[in-house]
Amino acid sequence: MSAKNNGLSIFALGGLNEIGKNMYAIQYENDIIIIDCGNKFPDESLLGIDLIIPDISYLVENKDKIRALIITHGHEDHIGGTPFFLKKLNVPVYATRFTLGLIELKLKEHKLLRESELVEINPDSNLTFGDIKVDFFKVNHSIPDCLGIVFNTPEGNIVHTGDFKFDLTPANDEYSDIHKMAEIGKRGVLLLLSESTNAERPGLTPSEQMVGEHVEEAFKKATRKVILSTFASNINRVQQVVDACKVTNRKLALLGRSMVNVVQVAMERGYLEVPDGMLIDQDEIDAMDPQNVAILCTGSQGEPMAALSRLSTGSFRGVEVLADDMVIFAAGPIPGNEKGVSKIIDNLFALGAKVIYGSGSSSGMHVSGHGYQEDLKLMLTLMRPKYFIPIHGEYRMLYHHRMLAESVGVEQGNTFIMKNGDVVDIENEVARQTRKIHAGNTYVDGVGVGDVGEIVLRDRKQLSEDGMLVSVLTISKAEGKLVSGPDTISRGFVYGGDSDDLIKNVNRIMTKTTNELLEANETKWNVMKNSIKKSVGQYIFQNTRKKPMILPIIIEI
Amino acid sequence: MSAKNNGLSIFALGGLNEIGKNMYAIQYENDIIIIDCGNKFPDESLLGIDLIIPDISYLVENKDKIRALIITHGHEDHIGGTPFFLKKLNVPVYATRFTLGLIELKLKEHKLLRESELVEINPDSNLTFGDIKVDFFKVNHSIPDCLGIVFNTPEGNIVHTGDFKFDLTPANDEYSDIHKMAEIGKRGVLLLLSESTNAERPGLTPSEQMVGEHVEEAFKKATRKVILSTFASNINRVQQVVDACKVTNRKLALLGRSMVNVVQVAMERGYLEVPDGMLIDQDEIDAMDPQNVAILCTGSQGEPMAALSRLSTGSFRGVEVLADDMVIFAAGPIPGNEKGVSKIIDNLFALGAKVIYGSGSSSGMHVSGHGYQEDLKLMLTLMRPKYFIPIHGEYRMLYHHRMLAESVGVEQGNTFIMKNGDVVDIENEVARQTRKIHAGNTYVDGVGVGDVGEIVLRDRKQLSEDGMLVSVLTISKAEGKLVSGPDTISRGFVYGGDSDDLIKNVNRIMTKTTNELLEANETKWNVMKNSIKKSVGQYIFQNTRKKPMILPIIIEI
Repeated sequence: MSAKNNGLSIFALGGLNEIGKNMYAIQYENDIIIIDCGNKFPDESLLGIDLIIPDISYLVENKDKIRALIITHGHEDHIGGTPFFLKKLNVPVYATRFTLGLIELKLKEHKLLRESELVEINPDSNLTFGDIKVDFFKVNHSIPDCLGIVFNTPEGNIVHTGDFKFDLTPANDEYSDIHKMAEIGKRGVLLLLSESTNAERPGLTPSEQMVGEHVEEAFKKATRKVILSTFASNINRVQQVVDACKVTNRKLALLGRSMVNVVQVAMERGYLEVPDGMLIDQDEIDAMDPQNVAILCTGSQGEPMAALSRLSTGSFRGVEVLADDMVIFAAGPIPGNEKGVSKIIDNLFALGAKVIYGSGSSSGMHVSGHGYQEDLKLMLTLMRPKYFIPIHGEYRMLYHHRMLAESVGVEQGNTFIMKNGDVVDIENEVARQTRKIHAGNTYVDGVGVGDVGEIVLRDRKQLSEDGMLVSVLTISKAEGKLVSGPDTISRGFVYGGDSDDLIKNVNRIMTKTTNELLEANETKWNVMKNSIKKSVGQYIFQNTRKKPMILPIIIEI
Repeated sequence: MSAKNNGLSIFALGGLNEIGKNMYAIQYENDIIIIDCGNKFPDESLLGIDLIIPDISYLVENKDKIRALIITHGHEDHIGGTPFFLKKLNVPVYATRFTLGLIELKLKEHKLLRESELVEINPDSNLTFGDIKVDFFKVNHSIPDCLGIVFNTPEGNIVHTGDFKFDLTPANDEYSDIHKMAEIGKRGVLLLLSESTNAERPGLTPSEQMVGEHVEEAFKKATRKVILSTFASNINRVQQVVDACKVTNRKLALLGRSMVNVVQVAMERGYLEVPDGMLIDQDEIDAMDPQNVAILCTGSQGEPMAALSRLSTGSFRGVEVLADDMVIFAAGPIPGNEKGVSKIIDNLFALGAKVIYGSGSSSGMHVSGHGYQEDLKLMLTLMRPKYFIPIHGEYRMLYHHRMLAESVGVEQGNTFIMKNGDVVDIENEVARQTRKIHAGNTYVDGVGVGDVGEIVLRDRKQLSEDGMLVSVLTISKAEGKLVSGPDTISRGFVYGGDSDDLIKNVNRIMTKTTNELLEANETKWNVMKNSIKKSVGQYIFQNTRKKPMILPIIIEI
């Protein structure tokens, strides 16, 4: 399973057929460069799992070849895996100033900051790793300081776009460097890896400036305090909120740990300008005229423990939402979060608040950071790649991105729709997808990384749906009979009603089965346990249509 | 807790601040009439629960006053609770011919059909219950044979809209009877109860005819077989699929139990016309030219066991989706189902199918059956009610519906935004909301109705997130010491890695705690168990950040 040692190879350990846990790799001979190291949040089928990160066992096996981890930008799905990665692989991390600030917050939390090697880069940086030269170009997205990457290899140039849109009127001068992109395309691009999040959406992404205009308008209309929730990392949107506070003479309070932390990083590093004296503590809110207050908070995705959720249920200590306060959702719900967000909107309306929300950009308070179809076609047109790998998306997004690529001139057959672990090898400017390396999910549960597997998850599923029964039976092998028990307790199973009768019958069946086995001289524990599980399981299913976990515990005296 | 015996009262046992389990009631003196009896599907926090139905204990206490259960239409959120209701309350059920067909399917399944009293009505029926006279008006929705209801009481007229939209070009002549509605409004409406599902959406609902046009166009374009998924109960859409098959010379196969059952009811009762010989069995599909085949199937909401999901993973016995087959989603995902639907779309694209889908009506293959803001305003305008109760919706929908009502002339203060269990009493044409009756959720889990409560759900949650440990300790009170064990087994907790060491340490701590207790002559089981749980729980949390359920079982010999 050692890495191939000649030629140029490209593969992903995360980010293909999924949104999340992005991790791509370029290998030229004995040099591997990793791009991004994200995490992903589990869906409800992964009971009890906190996070998913890429399985990096292939990289661990090849650790002497890894030269660098380059991060395109500071979103969780691109940096969230770094602490777990760096615990196993002490590789230098290259990222821009703002991105590094967010990575440092993470590493501090995991007590890893001191031993990590973090290298600040900017769009003009040039790096060399063996025969690979690396340079960068600035892209626009929904977080400051984003990079696209060019890998100049002896086989040809490979471009990785990072996450991007083309915003011709961005907030905070976060322009895409279209001129440099055009130059790169002119030099010649052998292979393009481009993100696919919005490949299903026609048109061009609306500009971030639109949000600023709507925010200012709403702040002017508001007769009492305004509460706005957005992603903390969207510093350019935060800047527009600050600007609206300036215009409407409001002080600004920050609620939620990540909002406070990220805004601090942004201010310290010069990505956010807040007038002196504008920021106030949450305990100053009450004393002020509501018309002079704004609150910026976390929780736009309906996260139950975040500030907005607690405000909506009246359980945020010291801050209340009152009638005629205005609440603005300046972020659309990510698929899967719709119900949680709706619950919060309902609660806020019930408090008498004026709530401004809407799907997608329909309220004018949110625009996507990911390019729509025309943005993606513009990138493809600028780069004019010979080969194309759509990345960062579920299958249907990669599929649509291939159609877009072909519509602007990428030859049929030159696009590779890949899975995590699939490898494209390039020799003599010819690309082929033939082999695989190991890729997969590593689950983080509590402090455990990778210690929860399929069996544990299957047990949790059974326990979660129908609960369990534990029965203790004491037998005497010498006498060949049950001497005490069964004593049965249940958890997560029926409760009250007829359940006493049910448990009595379970004990009766268990006694009968056990005595029959003992009379037949069957004392192998496995056989006994399985017979008991079977007879009791059948009885319970017939009477309740439920399948609780049944754990007979046999004690021999 | 007995019902109030004078005047007119209105309340809901389900359907307010939720989508689902609709159940409303009108009481005049000693006569109660129930409207609808729906169910609701649980969200993922209700582990293992199959269905939610209204808690009808108030009705059971007042069962001698209940005169009728009237059903507005045959959707699950209006009929899904009937078998459970009729098991407790043998009340005559009034519904139209098609709705009764669907109710009969349910009652057959629950072996309740013979003892139930089902009465067929139509939009021209007149019923009398004590001092309440009831008549009806036809409304258009996404299922045939829908009713709005007028209750003529001595206090005044109360109108319940059922679910509706205004479709001026419906499929199958399912027109709303606007003329009769206008007459009812002219007679005078004291109180209107109107559905609120789409009260947030501006404009007028698009017509069902649009779907028919898009379906026909797609069927003409398709070069191989077409697979279309929609709600089985949307018989007017099914008719349009049948019509498209006729035009394109395709045979039609039905996949999925509810599709087969509902289509059969519709054909038998004259709501669907299918040309002789058009329907084929699924095992005939393979032998036919793919261009002459269409499939109509269940599963448009991503339900994992439904036909479409199984087709998308190649696990539907005997029917395959092949390259260039066309798959049409003729239903938008209901909030909460987006991720399941996306997964199926991804799988279908990966099989090479051409997939037509889209959010809302963007693909032209789906329109809502619930009126948008202009539809709702038209109903309010026709009825000109003095009082208004928005029903059938989450809080923000009821809130917006109130604003719509006020915009067309309902006086401020005359709209009641209520919760399930709130009662509006009307005397001398004055309505007041002052009292409450008991309302709530009843959980159906397997065959158990109402036997799963909060404790069981809390246990399931803990078990689902962190699993459990069961430890058996045998003690001798005589000797005052532990004589065997602890033996600890875990389920749904860590597995492999360091877990052997962890369990060893758990046993060590348990032994120490038990012996200390016994030395101190503490032999109360509760005290012992709690001390063990506490010491072990602390150790496990410190080392894993997990909180499994800990069940010490102490055996005394």
